[in-house]
Amino acid sequence: MDPRQADPIERLIHELKKLPGIGRKTATRMAYMLLGKQADLAQSLAEALTYAKQHVHECRLCGNLSARNPCPICEDPRRSAQVICVTENVSDLLAIESSGEFSGTYHVLGGALSPLNGIGPAELRIPVLVERLQQGETKELILATSSTVDGDTTALYLAKIAAPFKVKVTRIASGIPSGSDLEYLDRVTIGRALSGRAELSS
Amino acid sequence: MDPRQADPIERLIHELKKLPGIGRKTATRMAYMLLGKQADLAQSLAEALTYAKQHVHECRLCGNLSARNPCPICEDPRRSAQVICVTENVSDLLAIESSGEFSGTYHVLGGALSPLNGIGPAELRIPVLVERLQQGETKELILATSSTVDGDTTALYLAKIAAPFKVKVTRIASGIPSGSDLEYLDRVTIGRALSGRAELSS
Repeated sequence: MDPRQADPIERLIHELKKLPGIGRKTATRMAYMLLGKQADLAQSLAEALTYAKQHVHECRLCGNLSARNPCPICEDPRRSAQVICVTENVSDLLAIESSGEFSGTYHVLGGALSPLNGIGPAELRIPVLVERLQQGETKELILATSSTVDGDTTALYLAKIAAPFKVKVTRIASGIPSGSDLEYLDRVTIGRALSGRAELSS
Repeated sequence: MDPRQADPIERLIHELKKLPGIGRKTATRMAYMLLGKQADLAQSLAEALTYAKQHVHECRLCGNLSARNPCPICEDPRRSAQVICVTENVSDLLAIESSGEFSGTYHVLGGALSPLNGIGPAELRIPVLVERLQQGETKELILATSSTVDGDTTALYLAKIAAPFKVKVTRIASGIPSGSDLEYLDRVTIGRALSGRAELSS
């Protein structure tokens, strides 16, 4: 049955269930809360969704989501356009921003290469990245795709793509997460932390 | 600052954060997911919210939320109108429905009495309950308010209110939840389970 013709409460639960990490039980609780006492909540959430949908777009340079185009990061004169950090999605960009350790610009791919799922370079924002490299301003490309098979594949592919442009290509470090105990980590992580070891300056 | 004038993404995060159990981090993830790849999701969720808001109302009899008024439970001829189960909110009604153990009708109060928070009988759907009792059809009133101080207070108050109508007033059992280990339960629960013990027929 088309959910649009279903019971309005069922339809709302059906939509809420699509949110990340939300199962049927939580979606039901949310739906009844939205329709219950706090009567304005459903209305204001609907308005915020419509408003955001109308005003938020992909930045034409980096692919970040923002109400401005180019986005505030690309437009910020204090950020170096010579260093581009490549991430799979906007959430990863936000995670790096929250570290406060990066003052360059970004390039959001919109996913990782995954030949098995039919995701090739043309499905990602790789052509736009090539255009940015062609302008010749870039000095370093930091590959911050995730530490998964697809993320590693994507990083290797981008390193090959970037080679003709004579830019420095780096990959973010893989190793032990800060604050974690060695005994609880998987052996791949430990193996990578060992092979990526760095000398301590005394 | 009025959140309506804020950045559209911030405003959406602000609204999502009002959902039960959703903190800033999850709200941010939801917002970027809604605005990202799956472009239709924000739109269809906004539509489902508006549609539900327009079509879902409190049942004039029991207070259940439904697109019909009276709600399907009150209208179902197989359900006994002689037994009324009183719950604090619609989620509790749904929980009882999902047990499949109840074939009467409901009465949703919309909360529990809480003098400290200024919630008296007039703030709840208690006057409507009195009207239903006055019609003389009710034979049993099952008090299924929660097992908290406020829930117990509400149950005692309703028992007093119902006394003149000569209906049987019962309180749902308090005891050990099914499948749980005694050693992990609090002493109030264990105390209530002991004092509410029932004889096993052999």
